[in-house]
Amino acid sequence: MSENAFALPKRYEVRLSGLGGQGLILAGRLLAEAAALHDGKYATQTQSYGPESRGGDSRSDVVISDEPIDYPHIIRADLLLAMSQMACDRNFYSLKREGILVVDADMVQHVPTNRAYLVPITRVARQEVGKAVVANVLALGVVVALSEVVSRQAVTAAVLAGAPKGTGAINRRALEVGFRLGDELKAGR
Amino acid sequence: MSENAFALPKRYEVRLSGLGGQGLILAGRLLAEAAALHDGKYATQTQSYGPESRGGDSRSDVVISDEPIDYPHIIRADLLLAMSQMACDRNFYSLKREGILVVDADMVQHVPTNRAYLVPITRVARQEVGKAVVANVLALGVVVALSEVVSRQAVTAAVLAGAPKGTGAINRRALEVGFRLGDELKAGR
Repeated sequence: MSENAFALPKRYEVRLSGLGGQGLILAGRLLAEAAALHDGKYATQTQSYGPESRGGDSRSDVVISDEPIDYPHIIRADLLLAMSQMACDRNFYSLKREGILVVDADMVQHVPTNRAYLVPITRVARQEVGKAVVANVLALGVVVALSEVVSRQAVTAAVLAGAPKGTGAINRRALEVGFRLGDELKAGR
Repeated sequence: MSENAFALPKRYEVRLSGLGGQGLILAGRLLAEAAALHDGKYATQTQSYGPESRGGDSRSDVVISDEPIDYPHIIRADLLLAMSQMACDRNFYSLKREGILVVDADMVQHVPTNRAYLVPITRVARQEVGKAVVANVLALGVVVALSEVVSRQAVTAAVLAGAPKGTGAINRRALEVGFRLGDELKAGR
């Protein structure tokens, strides 16, 4: 259980959006697995595919709850991650008024609110972890640090279980950089 | 495109249900990928996880359409696969009146309609393919043969792309046995 479980709403909705190839479908699956397999909660994950899946829009919706989930669709997202301008434009409407918006600062030039968290996610993944391909896991670290919707132990266990052989260390590092960035954003640094 | 694309409804809903560990989440993902990446359609796939994911209920919902999908959840399923009694009992309500019900004949003793297709899916996977673990892919073959919701080429390509290294041949064989069973059921044999 998350340390803050008692303070959380029963139902928490996360939408991860960006471009195909950014690994957001996998990130959504790992978040749902963290919640259900490691934190003892219920979770659903929905992904959308189109003929343009490779390179086009990509979206992964995760609903996490302390109770079985009757309605697995996003009603109003508590947290929206946007890793491309189009994803930000298309999905901002789905965010709650008091919801958390996280954008990749290099990918999203026009941010629709001044209450967003701007993080150069892909650049940090490349510069601090050494591989842009772990930007999805780094983003997951930011999301978990900001929302506390699952425990850090749970998401770490899910990422390590889901990481292809030989990539455990780099994925763990990406996640930890994400936690640190999320903590700094929360602290207002 | 499926050979019968023009005869299909624009939107087709499939629910794959059974026990955790039967591989139905993967089967749903492969069906969605077949539709979107190989048949040029739109698809969504939703999976539900609970604290009891391993061994408990498992459900994977796939919506396939010729057009972008606004509402990614099952309204009334066109096809329901039930690989356990509980899955059949819990999900039969979601099937359209004229929808297709496929059950694993050894797992489901009480079938709620005489219009169901009874197939000993897991037993055939073990006896004819040599491994019960490919029952999910065999079931996918049955589903595709009965529904024609995606082309056989598309689902074969998706299964081969998604199969772990070294398991391509056995998965292909499972799929083909599934096609044959589906064809026989359709022909009323």
